[in-house]
Amino acid sequence: MRLAELSERSGVPTATIKYYLRERLLPPGERITATKAEYGEEHLRRLRLVRSLIQVGRMPVATAREVLAAADDESLGQNARMGAAVWALPHGPEPEEDDAHTARAREQVDTVLRRMDWPHGQELGDNAPAYRTLVAAIASLDRLGYPHETEHLLVHARLAGELAVADLDLVETYDTPEQIEAVVALTVLYEPVLLSLRRLAQTEESSRRFKK
Amino acid sequence: MRLAELSERSGVPTATIKYYLRERLLPPGERITATKAEYGEEHLRRLRLVRSLIQVGRMPVATAREVLAAADDESLGQNARMGAAVWALPHGPEPEEDDAHTARAREQVDTVLRRMDWPHGQELGDNAPAYRTLVAAIASLDRLGYPHETEHLLVHARLAGELAVADLDLVETYDTPEQIEAVVALTVLYEPVLLSLRRLAQTEESSRRFKK
Repeated sequence: MRLAELSERSGVPTATIKYYLRERLLPPGERITATKAEYGEEHLRRLRLVRSLIQVGRMPVATAREVLAAADDESLGQNARMGAAVWALPHGPEPEEDDAHTARAREQVDTVLRRMDWPHGQELGDNAPAYRTLVAAIASLDRLGYPHETEHLLVHARLAGELAVADLDLVETYDTPEQIEAVVALTVLYEPVLLSLRRLAQTEESSRRFKK
Repeated sequence: MRLAELSERSGVPTATIKYYLRERLLPPGERITATKAEYGEEHLRRLRLVRSLIQVGRMPVATAREVLAAADDESLGQNARMGAAVWALPHGPEPEEDDAHTARAREQVDTVLRRMDWPHGQELGDNAPAYRTLVAAIASLDRLGYPHETEHLLVHARLAGELAVADLDLVETYDTPEQIEAVVALTVLYEPVLLSLRRLAQTEESSRRFKK
């Protein structure tokens, strides 16, 4: 298809598509004349991922480009590409400093991963952004004196595990070449779903417990 | 206690405490001379909540002030104050426009709330920021053509419900006057815990399914 059709089918203005092409967020089309190029279904799919990252996930172009580069890295296998692309997504706080709170949080995270039997998180450790964010978040709870018992963290971990099973079932409904793009998009698009459902659930639960 | 002791016990520099007092994030101490004031345990507790909001939750001072004003509103009962304080927290995207995607998303959210038997979310509707965020997030999935079957949303909702039970059990370990502050702090501080555990769980689950 030509640029005009790509724009119509994706709902993205041609000027925006040209910008994405210039910023290398979208691979070039197949050149057919000096001024015309032909685009395929993979451009349509990629465009929808770019919009998930930039418009919904509100990430800077440079971050989106890193995510896409990891997803496209053909030197890696399927699982490694998924991991690398998700790691390149914006993530939460980094551990601030190597103080006693951070050291204790790190030990506790390792205990949680061991008890969950999550060997990859243990091996990856600080190489995984999600591991560092978890350490930072628990160090904050510890520093401020809020509760963070391992049993409570395990409740969160078990529910996250169930969610991952359901999310990857969804990813596996896609054809293999699309699975990497799907896992990235669904990670970004389902975070606000999860957080807003958690707040709605809290409202229900606290209405049940506290009468007014 | 005097300002110096409040600073020492909270680990917050006196200049920062003075700034919080000026910005009305911290109630004034009890004045004992023209230049000296006395602070109590409630100041220590409030200081820790302010740091959760501003340093960990990275919210603007104006937002933090709104959250605290809702938490302190004595015209409301316990449950209403909790709700109002959590609602004042920063939240996800707002529904963009009243297009077909948003209309469909709204219907689907209502179905999820009905099937979960969450009457408060249904009654509150657009008055609850979490309801609007959920509508916006599902509208994005719909607009971009990513899956959002009700059954999949219900998996998220059920897990969010279990999490809310565990979180409110934790809140109930606090004395009544501290419960409102605790629910606000724990909402903010546990969001990165949940999101990073979800990403770690995905890594484990995808390593199991995709060999390399």
